[in-house]
This record gives sequence, C-alpha cells and structure tokens, in this order.
Amino acid sequence: MSLKTKIAVLGSGNGSNFTSLAEACNKDSLRAEITLVISDVKDAKILNRAKELGIPNKFINPGKFRTKLDDTAEAAYIKALKDSGAQWVALAGFMRILKGDFLRAFEQKVINIHPSLLPAFPGLEAWKQAYDYGVKVTGCTVHLVDYGIDTGRILAQGVVPVLESDTSTTLYQRIQEEEQRLYPSTLARLFNNKI
Amino acid sequence: MSLKTKIAVLGSGNGSNFTSLAEACNKDSLRAEITLVISDVKDAKILNRAKELGIPNKFINPGKFRTKLDDTAEAAYIKALKDSGAQWVALAGFMRILKGDFLRAFEQKVINIHPSLLPAFPGLEAWKQAYDYGVKVTGCTVHLVDYGIDTGRILAQGVVPVLESDTSTTLYQRIQEEEQRLYPSTLARLFNNKI
Repeated sequence: MSLKTKIAVLGSGNGSNFTSLAEACNKDSLRAEITLVISDVKDAKILNRAKELGIPNKFINPGKFRTKLDDTAEAAYIKALKDSGAQWVALAGFMRILKGDFLRAFEQKVINIHPSLLPAFPGLEAWKQAYDYGVKVTGCTVHLVDYGIDTGRILAQGVVPVLESDTSTTLYQRIQEEEQRLYPSTLARLFNNKI
Repeated sequence: MSLKTKIAVLGSGNGSNFTSLAEACNKDSLRAEITLVISDVKDAKILNRAKELGIPNKFINPGKFRTKLDDTAEAAYIKALKDSGAQWVALAGFMRILKGDFLRAFEQKVINIHPSLLPAFPGLEAWKQAYDYGVKVTGCTVHLVDYGIDTGRILAQGVVPVLESDTSTTLYQRIQEEEQRLYPSTLARLFNNKI
C-alpha cells in the first residue's frame, strides 16, 4: 500500500515545471508519484525529460483543433490517465483548453500553474501582458481548473517584483523560477490536506 | 525659495493616508508641503486632522451628484487648489471620480492610492472584492489618475498576503498599513525624479 498520491502531468513544452515536480517527488518533499506524462506535441522536451527520469510518457495526438482536444483525443487522454492510476492531473505548460468531459472525469482534480497573479492577466503570455501594462509586481498562481480560462479556485500565489532593469524575458525567467518553487510546495500542502 | 514640492490632498473619510503624508512631510522623509486639504464631506475626520496639524483645510460642496463633482463644484475645487499653489493633487480616500476639466487642470499631476494590486479589482471595496475572489496575495497601488477608473499609469505597488485567519476587515487593516508606508515613500521617489 502506497501513501503517495498519484499524479499525471500534461505538457506541451520544455517541461521545466514537470521537472520541478519530479525532483520534489524524488526528494520526497512531495509525497507523490508521477504515473504518466502526456504531451500533445510529438517532439516536446517534456517527453525526453520524462524518459531520462524513467517516468512513463507518451505523445497522444490532439486531433484537428489548435486550442483544444477533439472528442477522440479527449477520450484517449482520459483513458490513458485513468489507466495510469492518476488521481490528480497537473498541467505544466499544456497549451490546450480542457473541456467538460475531461473536467468531469477528474472533477476538482485538475491543477494548473499560471504565470501571473490571477485574476489579473489570464490567457496567453501573461508575463508579457503584465510587463506591457506596467505593473510593479506580478507572479504566478496555482489554481484548480474549471470551465473558464484561468478562473478556477486559487490554491497559492507567488510574488515576483518587476525590476527597473527587466525586459519581459528576464521577468518571465524569474516568474518561472518562482513557479518551480511554488508548484511542488503547493501540491505538497494540498496532498497533506493543508489547503 | 523652497525646494519642497507643493501638494494638495482630497479626501472624504478618516484621512489616514493624508496623515501618513503629513507625517512624512514633517519628518522630511517626503520633501513636500501640503498646501491644502479639501473634503467633499462636511464633517469628514480628514478636515479635523488637518486642523490639528495646522494645515489649511476646507469643505467644498460637491454639488448635486453622488459620484462626481458638478460643474460649479469642479471649478471651485480647481480654483482653491490653484490658489493654494499646489503642483500635485494627491487623492486620499476621495470618493468621487475626477473628470476632464479637473484632470486637464492638473495634467499628469493627480495621484491616487488604490487598495488592490491593479489592474485586479478596480472600483469600490477592492479589498473585499479580492477577499471574496479568494486571492492569496493582494496589496495596494499608487497610480496616476487618468480618465478611466483606476486605470492610470502605475507608480508603485505594495504586496499584502492574505492570511488563513483573515476576514475582509483584518485584511483591509493590513492593506491600509501598507498604504501608509507606500504612499509617502512613492511620492518621495516621484518628487526626487526617481520614478
């Protein structure tokens, strides 16, 4: 019998947040096991990183749409996740919107990290939106995924000041560093029923 | 010849932010002189506080509207402020929207402090909006006043974490404490051309 929470990770890109979760699992600062990594991008680095770490991983074709999964793909994602035994699904740079059937299959168990202090700057390139607006502080938000765009219940937020010397790129780098700290620590609190 | 920047303050309530500005002027941590305090509320505490501190103060009838000054009142406010020699106008809990003629009379010289991390939660009772939304961090924002509601250029922001034990009231108290630190320090930087 394992006391570890089983989580799966969906990602489309480099997998830096996935890596921070995997490292936290390895160090046991996060009492969880990553059962599967799925990407909608065939050659995404996140799949290579999973392979290097010995974590089951697969590309599943997302189908014909650009911003969501088509019905066939959605069913395939849900089946693979359920088959892996995952209790929670952590999004880590997954660039598609999850809809009704998926969210019902993992009711209140889908988590995302977003690179702004929500509800400010939902949507794409949030760090750039914040930089262009001229805020002096921004950050990142771990939240449950619901039917809106970045509107689900907030679990934790990390603050990143905008420096005089920042470009949107350097700002984003520091937000990503904060994400890599905040995501595993928030999941650890969540799985310990401390949220 | 004085090197002090002349500012006027408009407020409708207790004047806690006004008091923090006046104290900073007295201590010379803010190289400014408050030339006049105007309130749209006849018995507002801010007028008593100004009186106690020996700062010129007056009630000017705002006219028939609830959320703005009528034309006659607007002209009277502008005249009183100009007559006082004020170069800048600092809003401190002034519960009316300032419109075209006023903002043109003090072009880019009207400053406000707002109890949230703008652009999140503009408008009234921002601390309560933030609390009810469930954010984990909020704060306050010093910004230039433009023609929108809390949309002007951001000069500084202060962060206040939302604690597990917070009510919207205790949260607001800590935001106010942060405001009283942020407002004078931001004006000091502004008047030293450091913003």
